[in-house]
Amino acid sequence: MKEQVHTAARRARIAAATLAVTPRAGKDAALQAMADALVDGTDAIVAANDLDVEAARAAGTGENVIDRLRLDPSRVAAFADGLRHIAALPDPVGEVVRGATLANGLRMQQIRVPMGVIGMIYEGRPNVTADAAGICLKAGSAVLLRGSSSAARSNATIIEIMRGALGEAGLPPDAIQMIPADDRSSATHLMQARGLVDLVIPRGGAGLIRAVVEESTVPVIETGVGNCHVYVDADADLDMALEIVLNSKTHRTSVCNAAESLLVHKAVADTFLPTVVAALQHAGVTIHGDESFCAVQADIVPATEDDYAAEYLSLDISARVVDSIDDAIDHIRTYSSGHTEAIVTSSLAASTRFTSGVDSAAVMVNASTRFTDGGEFGFGAEIGISTQKLHARGPMGLTEMTTTTYVVTGAGHVR
Amino acid sequence: MKEQVHTAARRARIAAATLAVTPRAGKDAALQAMADALVDGTDAIVAANDLDVEAARAAGTGENVIDRLRLDPSRVAAFADGLRHIAALPDPVGEVVRGATLANGLRMQQIRVPMGVIGMIYEGRPNVTADAAGICLKAGSAVLLRGSSSAARSNATIIEIMRGALGEAGLPPDAIQMIPADDRSSATHLMQARGLVDLVIPRGGAGLIRAVVEESTVPVIETGVGNCHVYVDADADLDMALEIVLNSKTHRTSVCNAAESLLVHKAVADTFLPTVVAALQHAGVTIHGDESFCAVQADIVPATEDDYAAEYLSLDISARVVDSIDDAIDHIRTYSSGHTEAIVTSSLAASTRFTSGVDSAAVMVNASTRFTDGGEFGFGAEIGISTQKLHARGPMGLTEMTTTTYVVTGAGHVR
Repeated sequence: MKEQVHTAARRARIAAATLAVTPRAGKDAALQAMADALVDGTDAIVAANDLDVEAARAAGTGENVIDRLRLDPSRVAAFADGLRHIAALPDPVGEVVRGATLANGLRMQQIRVPMGVIGMIYEGRPNVTADAAGICLKAGSAVLLRGSSSAARSNATIIEIMRGALGEAGLPPDAIQMIPADDRSSATHLMQARGLVDLVIPRGGAGLIRAVVEESTVPVIETGVGNCHVYVDADADLDMALEIVLNSKTHRTSVCNAAESLLVHKAVADTFLPTVVAALQHAGVTIHGDESFCAVQADIVPATEDDYAAEYLSLDISARVVDSIDDAIDHIRTYSSGHTEAIVTSSLAASTRFTSGVDSAAVMVNASTRFTDGGEFGFGAEIGISTQKLHARGPMGLTEMTTTTYVVTGAGHVR
Repeated sequence: MKEQVHTAARRARIAAATLAVTPRAGKDAALQAMADALVDGTDAIVAANDLDVEAARAAGTGENVIDRLRLDPSRVAAFADGLRHIAALPDPVGEVVRGATLANGLRMQQIRVPMGVIGMIYEGRPNVTADAAGICLKAGSAVLLRGSSSAARSNATIIEIMRGALGEAGLPPDAIQMIPADDRSSATHLMQARGLVDLVIPRGGAGLIRAVVEESTVPVIETGVGNCHVYVDADADLDMALEIVLNSKTHRTSVCNAAESLLVHKAVADTFLPTVVAALQHAGVTIHGDESFCAVQADIVPATEDDYAAEYLSLDISARVVDSIDDAIDHIRTYSSGHTEAIVTSSLAASTRFTSGVDSAAVMVNASTRFTDGGEFGFGAEIGISTQKLHARGPMGLTEMTTTTYVVTGAGHVR
């Protein structure tokens, strides 16, 4: 298996050298061709997917997981549209990030260039296959796709169709390759193919991400775990606070930018706690609260340390009353996964203190945590949300899939 | 030892929270105080260093290594001046990298913020101790310094003096801490202190860097291995080429931006080879050449695959004649460590082809490889030269020691 992964990676490197010098028009034409081919291949994709779904059902997989796995013509059309949308975005490659003429006359430019070969290790949804391939291609990199074994037939069909379109568009099909998922070791070989793979991005649950971070010798960008907080300040507009808490928690519960924890300043606790408890419970949310919350209502579950650290991804929220904004910041610095925190306040001082005090990828002032998203930020495409500090932090679009090189031009300059 | 490293990291995190909200004036005053204290403490530093040097000599350490270890009053004054120079540089923290008002009225800003806690693992020279502490402090991060055991007494004294100055300047001394070097495991615990340490930077030989990359679970920036090439094109000005080859190879041999390999287009080989061979040999360089080079002169050592891959860091160079510019690019893509490559050419087409075809941190056109350097690039301070593609590529200054956060301000915005 190691040889198979390394062979794929070596072929990807060769394809990447071609992609690196392919102008935007060539990449966009290939993306359009891939979109057309996927729509034309809808029957084949859905047929392959039916086999995956049957196998999953036979294995006793839960219906919510099967729902994420299932493809129908409208879902295929949606990810084909996604590729067309990527084609319409500006090309990040070639951007001059900075430049100067140095004192000695050397002309220096820092230029955005492709990453090279990117490995994606992901779970579940087969739409990630087309999305990731499209984003990597537009950013000028070859991609090695290691999806879930449960979606193996769907992924294989989608990838075969995209490779065919690439070839017809005159680009190397090896720019998009599938790494077989039938053997767990293929993921390990991919993340240890140092010198052949430039970057590995895991997308999936906390367990997958931890495994990749621990085993990888290729640089990794961590994505996605979100224990997001909403802090209601002493100076909050409490009607606004209620809306933001409800939206952050209940708009969609299974996403990484959903709120998992509520902090309320003690100065507004007497007024706000009864209202927010009633509203959350009305929305079906189970509250895991501290003593102050538990005093409001018998239905509230006493919160443990584990609750404060939890990414529930469900209709649950931990809740605590804090003595001060610094108390709130300390709580967040202790328990947060560094994804998104929100403050609701009318005080400029409190807003400044909070945004500089917490240490997360995004901080919302008087807005829902749900806005941390590449689409909402106007990035056009998003390959995930980074919760690490290196290279990319927050939503990652095309720019974050590139690196830079310095080009320095002289006239025989020596030191 | 693990507990000791983790305790230091936890104290560093607390110090980092203070540094993150310390304005530039406070950091600059501390840097000046550190510089003054180091000069005042010259006798103590030199005395501690004498003990390190004696111990190294007793252990049979070579004189060139001892020379790098040795400190005298002028070297102490030089790194104190380095801190004053860092104080004079702009503060990278707070820079607005990009910003926009989104369609829904949300105001989004991507703001440069400190990394948090940075671990430095390095060998040899005790001047790195003061340099790294200064750069990290200015960039708003706490630093954990894990130097070489051979410099333990020098490093301990330098760090104690800097910590004292930090305290007197009103900043937390725990922003600069020493990780003991008497036990190899301290480095391992540092690079595996996930969640406590945000970034590890190894500085040293290829062996140290490989060990850190393989064992670290904290994100790493690789520095420094440089198998740099000079390619003399068919359209080169051969006088210029000779000067650039000599300067790249012989200006300083022990540095990562020195040239280690020479490629010559066959069209100019007959003219150029005799000249360049004579000039290199006159400068004391041993040439490890291919058949064409060996045909010029009996003293040339036949080159092996290992020669083409070598970072000699000595008066040696590998040398080969290539059939075309694409041949040169292929050779470089195969053997280079991705640091710096140079082309000598008068052809715009060749220059464009070369700069977009090689895949390295820096590409020089008609200039010496020796120009890849933070000081030469005008960065003011340099903590190393990254040869990886993630986060920072090429010389790393203050900016590269930071990350960013998105601050999004609304008026009760929900989705």
